Amino acid sequence: MPFEEKFHLRIPGPTPVPPRVQHAMNRPMIGHRSAECSRLVRQCSQRLQPVFGTRENVLIITGSGTSALEAAVSNTVAPGEEVVVAVTGAFGDRFAKIAGRFGAQVHRLDIPWGEACSPDALKSFLASRPRVKAVFLTHCETSTGVLNPVQDLATIIKEHTDALVIVDGVSSVGGVACEMDAWGIDIFVTGSQKALMLPPGLAFVAVSPRAWGVIRQTEGPRFYLDLQTYHEDLERETTPFTPGIAHLFGLEAVLDMIEEEGLENIFARHRLMMEMTRAGVRALGLPLLTEDAVASPTVTAVRGTENIDASALQKELRRIGAVVASGQQHLKGKIFRIGHMGYCDPLDVLTLLSALETALHRLGGTVRWGAAVGAAEEVWNRV
Amino acid sequence: MPFEEKFHLRIPGPTPVPPRVQHAMNRPMIGHRSAECSRLVRQCSQRLQPVFGTRENVLIITGSGTSALEAAVSNTVAPGEEVVVAVTGAFGDRFAKIAGRFGAQVHRLDIPWGEACSPDALKSFLASRPRVKAVFLTHCETSTGVLNPVQDLATIIKEHTDALVIVDGVSSVGGVACEMDAWGIDIFVTGSQKALMLPPGLAFVAVSPRAWGVIRQTEGPRFYLDLQTYHEDLERETTPFTPGIAHLFGLEAVLDMIEEEGLENIFARHRLMMEMTRAGVRALGLPLLTEDAVASPTVTAVRGTENIDASALQKELRRIGAVVASGQQHLKGKIFRIGHMGYCDPLDVLTLLSALETALHRLGGTVRWGAAVGAAEEVWNRV
Repeated sequence: MPFEEKFHLRIPGPTPVPPRVQHAMNRPMIGHRSAECSRLVRQCSQRLQPVFGTRENVLIITGSGTSALEAAVSNTVAPGEEVVVAVTGAFGDRFAKIAGRFGAQVHRLDIPWGEACSPDALKSFLASRPRVKAVFLTHCETSTGVLNPVQDLATIIKEHTDALVIVDGVSSVGGVACEMDAWGIDIFVTGSQKALMLPPGLAFVAVSPRAWGVIRQTEGPRFYLDLQTYHEDLERETTPFTPGIAHLFGLEAVLDMIEEEGLENIFARHRLMMEMTRAGVRALGLPLLTEDAVASPTVTAVRGTENIDASALQKELRRIGAVVASGQQHLKGKIFRIGHMGYCDPLDVLTLLSALETALHRLGGTVRWGAAVGAAEEVWNRV
Repeated sequence: MPFEEKFHLRIPGPTPVPPRVQHAMNRPMIGHRSAECSRLVRQCSQRLQPVFGTRENVLIITGSGTSALEAAVSNTVAPGEEVVVAVTGAFGDRFAKIAGRFGAQVHRLDIPWGEACSPDALKSFLASRPRVKAVFLTHCETSTGVLNPVQDLATIIKEHTDALVIVDGVSSVGGVACEMDAWGIDIFVTGSQKALMLPPGLAFVAVSPRAWGVIRQTEGPRFYLDLQTYHEDLERETTPFTPGIAHLFGLEAVLDMIEEEGLENIFARHRLMMEMTRAGVRALGLPLLTEDAVASPTVTAVRGTENIDASALQKELRRIGAVVASGQQHLKGKIFRIGHMGYCDPLDVLTLLSALETALHRLGGTVRWGAAVGAAEEVWNRV
């Protein structure tokens, strides 16, 4: 390719940062205890509420998404307490590992990767575990492209236990309809570098009143990720530790963009990009990892074929200038993953599909030129 | 003032971000598992070594500086174990609080704020506490502008105990000579937003072989801040969790700037700015919080007078367009703090001193015009 540094970043996070957001991040630095920083913290937290579907404060942590996952565990679960983790992929697995590290008695409900956790499966699993303190769910499982039916799962949990419902929304919040309060989610976390279009470096945690009750009763060694400290400081319009201020500058621009496009339009755009991607991949005869009914609007996993493996496709795409992600853990080499979230539009999807046609051809596949692009265009333009 | 958003940020962190660094941070986003990100992680870690004065790996954590302080505690100290914390201000106090939160039996050596911890004081304190597992020191105590004599303190610790020497270098590393290996520091941590001229959001931890031995033996609930994971992943040129990639882009530019200026020149510039600041403040008859012998090259704390209090001066400076920091905890209202580190040069110091002359005059003080600026110029131009 002529330009080494020119590429299309289509991994499921980090995602491209809009120029307008980069520009905002270049504002001259300010003090973290200034009135301007207080305004930023207050307004960013408030304006994130509709994105989470909550009227609760959205706490802002400086860290990777995993820092928020850990906060959700360490603030709610004491050693020896029982938790259930629905593991549908690498990030459910991470929740289980963190809970184990913090001494919880972890009951893993392992679902084959590529499938969603069904309400029935969870219901049966919870039947013999009534004393569980928290159930951990993954909304979009980034490692497989599955969107778990969090609303229905939360209903099951509330009906059969007193457990907190704790949800990883890292690759869903901002790209998929999220109704934390209406669905009965108690703790909902996300990161900055997915549908929220920022560089990695901030994490967000929203907490229900019921969860605060549990958190106040849960002793444990925590300081940097002590959610009560963030909550108390947010009431005073500040953060306990110096926050990622450049990211806050950028977040303000992101929230402007979200409000201008409108959440419903954003969610429709993500569903459209998912459908275009799936139609295009199918038109090339490549198998999708997930069923349509549980497919995530933000990320699509594609399997290799008997003759052409997923890693080879990923590498060939990289040569052409399109960057997709590999599979994780036991899916490594078996799938590649296309991110279509955040600062991504239908034309970006067509570009990726066009590159996929060429990559497949160069690896010896039979390709009718324009097949993937055409199928996606048809989806885009159907009435 | 004509321009609301035009101000001179002279707080002891966050500090101004150089335009060149901002520009670097605007590079198009990349994947965190890409070859380019591996190169960034590897080279940033290696190029930070001379800044820390170490041949050990410098681990890169995405978080505020406090995340690195917590990592230094939680990876080395198990509940019930004894530690000593030399508390010379708010950040020594933070180390003690974190250690307490993680169940350590904390022996606080409290030094009056504004003074340094002397080797003799530490020696006496350690005499009755031979079984201590770690001693926590603050290199530059940002809340008072004291530079503790870490080299001498480390020598005392090694002579009288087997304790690890753990040092907060948040507002020293990059502005003050640091010789981690030669001084016998076991864990040395810093943050991105002080002398390293980046926005807040990254933290750095360097660990001695002796400390790794202790860390491997120290059980405890940790995941996001588990230093062994960072170490193992750095050996593979990556990070365990998605790092603050825009900050890594910026860090590369920062390291270019550091290498171009040269560490010795950087340290000399910081000492010069300290001496200019102190000469200027003295010329106005304002008392300094610290003695010359223990003054930090990166931050200077100034007391108010009987008639004009420190908060009033801080507010008046803000009106003029110069932003300084208030005192913390019991020094709130009694001092203001001038940061002179990172992207700051002698002309910036003169600007601040000029603003201070005007502020003092507007609050009814007797000011000989040019007194502070003149005194600082004399320091700048002496042979």
